[in-house]
Amino acid sequence: MTKSNPGRFFEDFAKGETIAHATPRTLSEADAALNIALTGARYAFFSADSFAQNCGLPGAPIDPLLVFHTVFGKTVPDISLNAVANLGYAEGRFLTPVYPGDTLNAVSEVLGVKANSNGKTGIVTVRTDGFNQDGAPVLSYVRWVMVNKRDEAAPTADAPPITPKPAVAAADLLLPLGLDFTGYDFDLAGGPHGFDDYEVGERIDHVDGMTVEEAEHQLATRLYQNTAKVHFDALAQQGSRFGKRLIYGGVAISLARALAFNGLANAQLMLAINAGRHVNPLFAGDTLYAWSEVLAKEDLGEAGALRLRLVALKNRSAAGFTARTEAGEYDPGVVLDFDYWAAIPKR
Amino acid sequence: MTKSNPGRFFEDFAKGETIAHATPRTLSEADAALNIALTGARYAFFSADSFAQNCGLPGAPIDPLLVFHTVFGKTVPDISLNAVANLGYAEGRFLTPVYPGDTLNAVSEVLGVKANSNGKTGIVTVRTDGFNQDGAPVLSYVRWVMVNKRDEAAPTADAPPITPKPAVAAADLLLPLGLDFTGYDFDLAGGPHGFDDYEVGERIDHVDGMTVEEAEHQLATRLYQNTAKVHFDALAQQGSRFGKRLIYGGVAISLARALAFNGLANAQLMLAINAGRHVNPLFAGDTLYAWSEVLAKEDLGEAGALRLRLVALKNRSAAGFTARTEAGEYDPGVVLDFDYWAAIPKR
Amino acid sequence: MTKSNPGRFFEDFAKGETIAHATPRTLSEADAALNIALTGARYAFFSADSFAQNCGLPGAPIDPLLVFHTVFGKTVPDISLNAVANLGYAEGRFLTPVYPGDTLNAVSEVLGVKANSNGKTGIVTVRTDGFNQDGAPVLSYVRWVMVNKRDEAAPTADAPPITPKPAVAAADLLLPLGLDFTGYDFDLAGGPHGFDDYEVGERIDHVDGMTVEEAEHQLATRLYQNTAKVHFDALAQQGSRFGKRLIYGGVAISLARALAFNGLANAQLMLAINAGRHVNPLFAGDTLYAWSEVLAKEDLGEAGALRLRLVALKNRSAAGFTARTEAGEYDPGVVLDFDYWAAIPKR
Repeated sequence: MTKSNPGRFFEDFAKGETIAHATPRTLSEADAALNIALTGARYAFFSADSFAQNCGLPGAPIDPLLVFHTVFGKTVPDISLNAVANLGYAEGRFLTPVYPGDTLNAVSEVLGVKANSNGKTGIVTVRTDGFNQDGAPVLSYVRWVMVNKRDEAAPTADAPPITPKPAVAAADLLLPLGLDFTGYDFDLAGGPHGFDDYEVGERIDHVDGMTVEEAEHQLATRLYQNTAKVHFDALAQQGSRFGKRLIYGGVAISLARALAFNGLANAQLMLAINAGRHVNPLFAGDTLYAWSEVLAKEDLGEAGALRLRLVALKNRSAAGFTARTEAGEYDPGVVLDFDYWAAIPKR
Repeated sequence: MTKSNPGRFFEDFAKGETIAHATPRTLSEADAALNIALTGARYAFFSADSFAQNCGLPGAPIDPLLVFHTVFGKTVPDISLNAVANLGYAEGRFLTPVYPGDTLNAVSEVLGVKANSNGKTGIVTVRTDGFNQDGAPVLSYVRWVMVNKRDEAAPTADAPPITPKPAVAAADLLLPLGLDFTGYDFDLAGGPHGFDDYEVGERIDHVDGMTVEEAEHQLATRLYQNTAKVHFDALAQQGSRFGKRLIYGGVAISLARALAFNGLANAQLMLAINAGRHVNPLFAGDTLYAWSEVLAKEDLGEAGALRLRLVALKNRSAAGFTARTEAGEYDPGVVLDFDYWAAIPKR
Repeated sequence: MTKSNPGRFFEDFAKGETIAHATPRTLSEADAALNIALTGARYAFFSADSFAQNCGLPGAPIDPLLVFHTVFGKTVPDISLNAVANLGYAEGRFLTPVYPGDTLNAVSEVLGVKANSNGKTGIVTVRTDGFNQDGAPVLSYVRWVMVNKRDEAAPTADAPPITPKPAVAAADLLLPLGLDFTGYDFDLAGGPHGFDDYEVGERIDHVDGMTVEEAEHQLATRLYQNTAKVHFDALAQQGSRFGKRLIYGGVAISLARALAFNGLANAQLMLAINAGRHVNPLFAGDTLYAWSEVLAKEDLGEAGALRLRLVALKNRSAAGFTARTEAGEYDPGVVLDFDYWAAIPKR
């Protein structure tokens, strides 16, 4: 019997089961620098110790999305090695900031399993929790994924999860301990707009575009120790639906967030992931554009929070704020529809 | 009104104006390692703490060119987002060494503006100063750039700058505090030649070539948080003069300097940038070669200084020392003509 | 006379000669992170301080293969700049673990020279020793390489080396000081199999594949400060036997070892390189697969050791365990045949 891991198939998941994921990972200033090199991110909080210190933190924390990708990467060998599609995220909360030197682990609980009527696949829903070396939770989120069955004839329990909440409640948003926006420097941050300058319903075209190369998304996805074959094995992908390597959805999220700096420079600190869907695949050679919409605002006292919709498009400008067609379908150019909360200083 | 930054146009610049640039950046050992991975640099000073310590420094400083690119990158959103061409540099001096952990900021002063007769563009000259977290100046340089007008009909002040000096005077060169070449190890540095071995007028073919990939220059340019669209947006560039992404000129400078190790291994420490011109564009797929000429020598007491001309060529060997044609025009293969001072130990 | 280094030719090597190599290099957490990004390695020892500390070490050591590539890279300008082919390795031992902050140097001794009958080339055998900043040996290995003669008419001494041993004896394997597998966490390491689960003769298909891009192998090879032109100069390579850039063999070793995680997750710590041959060239665009065979087992007391053969294939699945044809020749799909010892915990 082979010692290599074939990954779990749909019938291997049981509701209520807990899975401890492998390969703890110490994040360092190198991951922060690589994150900048791979995405072009310019949010000052994650770029400069002095900026973060001026806001009450001990130094520049690791970008929450990098924390997310690192935790997510750990789950892939156990959850989604045989996944057909990563369907969505919900109820994502960043709980403790991660700093260079922290080591991340991850554990998932199976919230539900639901066989598809085709008998070939099913949907697995898990809650994944990420922890630092002290056991403090750094991130918790729900994810659902369509997974192949190993054996179409295998019996499958139908134990669907409770429906996740459409958004994280403002009362559940956690600001990093010690955060203090009193001395926030808007000039250094790169944008003049604070909490009061944004209105619900406002849309922002982030203007800039980023063309993605195979080497770039592979470097990023390996940095996250995400092993999903679809991102790396061009030969095997020749026989796939798309005929080529697929870019990890997390790369699209991080690139779109980096583009969103242009218009949202002060909405630096992601606090929660309300929802996220990878609507269409992104491939090397595609150019990514992004626009945002302010979905809600919430005064958290020492800071404001914006609920933002981030839509990423491939190979078409974001100036038209493209999302769904009149028929309600996603436009084929839409890559990502992502809904999150971010902290933002009041002026 | 949109919150994204359209960048300044020519008529937005006023002589004497000061611009504080965004996104402070803490450089770390990761930036040093990425600099090696991206350029192939082998200068021992920036590669090994022990080598630098043996020369009186607290540890390996950050390569001055990486400091330059980082400071330069900060100026792009404010100065050259709508630039047609980056015309040149002058009066560049490295003032305080930068070490891992230091955080860089940048401020520019507009030295002059001069409209072009075509009514569409103008030339903006700025002095940019980079500072560390203690406010100590790390770098100061002058740069001029051709910028589009937003509105051709807009009136434009003609306030040209004073002409920059052709070269930094030897008396203005600053050696890093504590630098001591007494125990300099030529074997470990990788070359036998010291100050006395070089003669004014001498030319050196650096022999090796480096082919550049899209992923590489994009990684480097994002690491510098340089956002100029021409480097990243292949789709938008299809409509440009070149039809493709342009490589940031700083990438050519760093690659050529890395190639120059082969013949100038001990001219490690760049002290000043006298002049620099990006003569022809560099594209992914091009192979870069380089040659140097010794323009001047100066005995600084505890060290020597060489004034060096570094010429980078694309897709042709440097063995012929190609630069200008007989008619005085640059050969189309010349990418870079760069003039700098570097410290070098006496034997 | 030019100051650039043309590299040594066959007639420049003399048996018994010692060569101190240039460019000491301080490895940092950045090199560890880049190693993960470039290879996809998931061995927990090199990924998480906490995991290594739980096994008695002060923190995550640098992956021994990264140490090997760094030391190897230093030898290239002196040994193999004019090499036709890197023929093999033997007697490689990892002696002291390397940690972030350590600085590596390298020295080689010429063990033998043997002219080829064609009069154009010869084989040079060297022992290379790597040292840290305290002068402690970190790695020692023998390598032989075919080198061009500068002048076919030059007389050549025939001073062949003693034949290297076919494998490092188990008694010569050194476990890192303080290593203690008592509390080893198999779940966190990502595989259930310990020393007792493997049998001599057992073969493991590592299943996953990795497609390599030009930017990736160039980044890796520059990170190792390996300057061999064949990896970087696409223009010069147009005139070569292959017509394109060749991927540094060390990249194939590291990629294959990263793939081997899937089946050998606990054989994390490479202790020795018994033998290694780059059988066929690897090019950008190729997809790498790997399989392993257990050649021997040795109980080292506090840990077990597996002697493993690692075979890397290009563009064909490893499921068939392809190596040599019936005629005894290597299959053209075989890229690497590598023989090493790794420590593995007993359950």
